[in-house]
Amino acid sequence: MNSYLPIVCGILALIFAFILTKGISKEDPGNERMKEISGYIHEGAMAFLKREYRYLSVFIVVVAIIIILAVDYKTAICFVFGAVFSILAGYCGMNVATKANVRTAQAATEGQRKALKIAFSGGAVMGMCVVGLGIFGLALLYIILGNDPNFITGFGLGASSIALFARVGGGIYTKAADVGADLVGKVEAGIPEDDPRNPAVIADNVGDNVGDVAGMGADLFESYVGSIISALTLGYFLFSGEQSKILFPLMLASVGVIASIIGAIFARNSKNSNPQKTLNHGTYIGGVLVIIGSLSLSISIFGDSKAFFAILAGLIVGISIGKITEIYTSDEYRFVRRIAKQSETGEATTIISGFAVGMYSTMIPIVLICAGVLFSFYIMGGGENIFMGLYGISLAAVGMLSTTGLTVAVDAYGPIADNAGGIAEMSGLPSSVREITDKLDSVGNTTAAIGKGFAIGSAALTALALFASYAQKTELTAINLLTPVTLVGVLIGAMLPFLFGALTMESVGKAANHMIEEVRHQFKTIPGIMEGKAKPDYKKCVDISTSAALKEMILPGVLAIVVPIAVGMLLGVEALGGLIGGAVSSGVLIAIMMANAGGAWDNAKKFIERGAHGGKGSDAHKAAVVGDTVGDPFKDTSGPAMNILIKLMTIVSLVFATVIANNGGILLRLFN
Amino acid sequence: MNSYLPIVCGILALIFAFILTKGISKEDPGNERMKEISGYIHEGAMAFLKREYRYLSVFIVVVAIIIILAVDYKTAICFVFGAVFSILAGYCGMNVATKANVRTAQAATEGQRKALKIAFSGGAVMGMCVVGLGIFGLALLYIILGNDPNFITGFGLGASSIALFARVGGGIYTKAADVGADLVGKVEAGIPEDDPRNPAVIADNVGDNVGDVAGMGADLFESYVGSIISALTLGYFLFSGEQSKILFPLMLASVGVIASIIGAIFARNSKNSNPQKTLNHGTYIGGVLVIIGSLSLSISIFGDSKAFFAILAGLIVGISIGKITEIYTSDEYRFVRRIAKQSETGEATTIISGFAVGMYSTMIPIVLICAGVLFSFYIMGGGENIFMGLYGISLAAVGMLSTTGLTVAVDAYGPIADNAGGIAEMSGLPSSVREITDKLDSVGNTTAAIGKGFAIGSAALTALALFASYAQKTELTAINLLTPVTLVGVLIGAMLPFLFGALTMESVGKAANHMIEEVRHQFKTIPGIMEGKAKPDYKKCVDISTSAALKEMILPGVLAIVVPIAVGMLLGVEALGGLIGGAVSSGVLIAIMMANAGGAWDNAKKFIERGAHGGKGSDAHKAAVVGDTVGDPFKDTSGPAMNILIKLMTIVSLVFATVIANNGGILLRLFN
Repeated sequence: MNSYLPIVCGILALIFAFILTKGISKEDPGNERMKEISGYIHEGAMAFLKREYRYLSVFIVVVAIIIILAVDYKTAICFVFGAVFSILAGYCGMNVATKANVRTAQAATEGQRKALKIAFSGGAVMGMCVVGLGIFGLALLYIILGNDPNFITGFGLGASSIALFARVGGGIYTKAADVGADLVGKVEAGIPEDDPRNPAVIADNVGDNVGDVAGMGADLFESYVGSIISALTLGYFLFSGEQSKILFPLMLASVGVIASIIGAIFARNSKNSNPQKTLNHGTYIGGVLVIIGSLSLSISIFGDSKAFFAILAGLIVGISIGKITEIYTSDEYRFVRRIAKQSETGEATTIISGFAVGMYSTMIPIVLICAGVLFSFYIMGGGENIFMGLYGISLAAVGMLSTTGLTVAVDAYGPIADNAGGIAEMSGLPSSVREITDKLDSVGNTTAAIGKGFAIGSAALTALALFASYAQKTELTAINLLTPVTLVGVLIGAMLPFLFGALTMESVGKAANHMIEEVRHQFKTIPGIMEGKAKPDYKKCVDISTSAALKEMILPGVLAIVVPIAVGMLLGVEALGGLIGGAVSSGVLIAIMMANAGGAWDNAKKFIERGAHGGKGSDAHKAAVVGDTVGDPFKDTSGPAMNILIKLMTIVSLVFATVIANNGGILLRLFN
Repeated sequence: MNSYLPIVCGILALIFAFILTKGISKEDPGNERMKEISGYIHEGAMAFLKREYRYLSVFIVVVAIIIILAVDYKTAICFVFGAVFSILAGYCGMNVATKANVRTAQAATEGQRKALKIAFSGGAVMGMCVVGLGIFGLALLYIILGNDPNFITGFGLGASSIALFARVGGGIYTKAADVGADLVGKVEAGIPEDDPRNPAVIADNVGDNVGDVAGMGADLFESYVGSIISALTLGYFLFSGEQSKILFPLMLASVGVIASIIGAIFARNSKNSNPQKTLNHGTYIGGVLVIIGSLSLSISIFGDSKAFFAILAGLIVGISIGKITEIYTSDEYRFVRRIAKQSETGEATTIISGFAVGMYSTMIPIVLICAGVLFSFYIMGGGENIFMGLYGISLAAVGMLSTTGLTVAVDAYGPIADNAGGIAEMSGLPSSVREITDKLDSVGNTTAAIGKGFAIGSAALTALALFASYAQKTELTAINLLTPVTLVGVLIGAMLPFLFGALTMESVGKAANHMIEEVRHQFKTIPGIMEGKAKPDYKKCVDISTSAALKEMILPGVLAIVVPIAVGMLLGVEALGGLIGGAVSSGVLIAIMMANAGGAWDNAKKFIERGAHGGKGSDAHKAAVVGDTVGDPFKDTSGPAMNILIKLMTIVSLVFATVIANNGGILLRLFN
């Protein structure tokens, strides 16, 4: 009975998503001009997805064959399911998002409340697809494959690899378009943002969808399933045979799904017209329900509240990291203000101080993660049984991610509101519409900061928990830092996020350059374009972003999969363990640094635009714009990709653990 | 007999330094104007040192008392000696450097060959003081304290803590003055570099001495003694009683000292007027002598050439990292050219691509370090006896640093030539003089890049070797990455370089702001200053840099010492081991990234200044200047400080190892 509950919950979430989709489709998509523009965006987004899927299908087939040969066919089946479900979630979410945007703009002509409802519903579809497909897929495969969670690590691998491609591809897409549109349109030609005369404007709006909706959804899909998988595999090892205990993480996730649905319904139907309060309302209700549910689950299954406290620790750490993020990235605190002040002495001091803020902002989140790790380890009795303690860490990760449905909903709502604003601008709707969408968008930004905190915190905990599963599977009882191979692994692992950051930033730079040249070219060669008489060639720009994103995502994606396997085969399981440890620590740090530096620069610019230090057009503003542009790939491409990188490398190690344990360390055997 | 050889070699190096000093003093210090200006620089530098020493003496007394209470009085004595010797080396080197600069300028009126000779002699004094005082102090204390190397870890701690203060203080000093002088003088007022009308110009020249001469010297002093200490302590443990084997690292260092003296004499007396060839000449001779010497030492003491190969591995890794550095930072390769190209699209793309180059450039050096670690570990038989293998790693570090005398000489020669150029400019000497000093300086830059590679590579190996000594002293046979406390240690350790980078960059920003305001103020309030009729108040600017440097060096310095002890006391020896592992990996990466990004920006600017992409005054040039200014604290303050940070934290752990092993882990005892 128990094992069917998660499947039922997953189906419930999908039904809810379906109802929301129907509801959105029924809304008025506005006038012809709006339909035309949103049509371009929808088309561009779908064209990107379709071409991406072509690449991904090759990848899926190749990796599936490798898994069949190196591991077993059941894991390969799970891998394919994980990949396909992740793709499915992204497809559904983005399909709806590109419908909700124009309807949000139209609704905003009638008032804020309705616009908020549509935008949030659009986000909620993405959220429900993520959790629904995640828990449904996991539970189903678990039962079908004979209640053995070892195969479903493949599901995690599928989800992770798609997430990496989606995040990196989406991130490059959106920033190439954004930087290109801004540098030529805003700076050189002096036309406002989202101006229909700008050839890159559609690509920019498509980018919001493929990067911030589909990319982010895939990211959290894999965190979500990754944390459940690690808890399941550790539980399977710890509670041999006791199904009710083994299934605990899936039960917990089920509670989270129900809580998310209820929270979303509350947020959607709230009569409050303050968008911030509405979103908080839904989030709090979801959170409280999860706390109550996990306490009773903990007592009924384990007979005490220890597991509950581990889960609670995860929730608190996640929320705290989000709140702390605000301190470093909101203009209400001294960090952003200091950057704004430094803009007065020019671009260089703006960059230096923003970079310093990003580095500085790593301290407290790391301490919080450490506290969460130690607490959830020891509360579960890790002092006596190390794997029991590691199980506690994995529960903290599951706890942190239990309300993923709501987190994604709130996260995806932002870009929908943003897109609605763009459509309003391009269709020449009254400025009151843009004001409403801007307000919705800005609320989304604050809430999204908390979401980013969750994403980073959960990535760290999930990776650590998967790391524990890896150790258990390779039967390592120690990964000794004193052994040089481990140290070498740590060094190489710590280096990988740097390499990854370099590759992704370089890609954005290259793609943005293409875009800049194309936009300049169109401004020069299409007569009447600046007077609004001739239409720019939007498609060309969409195409540039699409091709660049797809081409540039391959190398980082392949590296993330090949390097762990290569290190394991050459230097053995201990070196691979060190690699994961090094990659997790340096990856989390770079992720936090880049996300917060980018956020701080962004808000310093906005702070100046609202009138500080000379306001718009001043030298300080120019310097701040440079900071913001540097921050774009930091916070939207390279930074978020780190989360996935560390989880993907960990799960690759986990899937190939046995192969590496049996055959790895070729180079070491030569030495000895 | 054997144990007195290092003492004799140390004294020889000091005698050589004394002879060189006398020779420099005898040279012509030029006309009145030159004497006046060099007098300002000398005064400013000495004033900084004196005030720094006042702070440091308080620090030395306090830490010595703590060591007496927590460890023992012998270690405390060694600590005081290590600190005082490091100070002494810095004082002598800088004293001579501030005399050699003006004499180099004067000699350049007679020709390049003589100028080269004086500048190199000035650098060689610093080099000989570093190795002479280092080996003399170590060997003397080792003998006096009963042939037990455990106490002389205190010597390393003294050297490390002074190095940190000197590097951080010097780095902040020089960059505050540099950024301040450039931003107001060059950019706002439009006067050339090193113009005597600029109030910050003396501070800028003083900064070259305190940062690049004294700071760098202290840095390599501690790497040098640190590597010898780690090899001595491991050898003491491995070869109980066999003095000849225990003394091997000191013998190797003695060979290095002799080789360095001979190499320096060759370079100094070379008839070749090509400065690059002259320097290479000396370096090669030194290197070959060390190779021959270490091979015969290895065979005569150990009976085989295994130790020799470990040493050779260290040398090769050091040189390779230096050469690789060139690829990322010289305009003859595509990386710098790409940054220069990106300058055409503005400041933001310049920063993004430079940052990407910095991150990318970490890959090969890390792989080289890993290869060196594995090779020197296994060649010494680490497969059978782990500590024997770790001893191999420490020998690689000693090998890499054996020619430190020459490395420092070449490194310190650059800023002397640079200073000579400044004095020539300010005294209105003919432009041919400046041309010669510029040529000498540019050669110094290339060679200094190799020196930086050595500094980073040796810091990594030294820290790893000291880490091994730590494990041996705390009787840890494993530092298990699977234990959450170790993981927590790794996370916190990896975070510290980020925190450290943030603090030092923020300090440069703050100090530069003060300087900018002061220079603007003087331009406004001193009548006739721009016409050259009134003298600017140089002293005020020197004072601003001095106060800022001294104030801002305290927090990072104290943190580096307190955090490892606190983590050890709260979370125990394993967590502290993890902390070191994390700090070394992330510290080395950030050091490489910052050094190379800074170097690449610098050379991209110079590349454009030589005519590419529109040349001086073009928009591309403006963007490149921003990159260069951002790179300044990267490559001259935060980056180099990382090397010391990781070594200092490791040696702090080593000195307090026993205390922590016996009393640490308070928090863990509460949990259990």
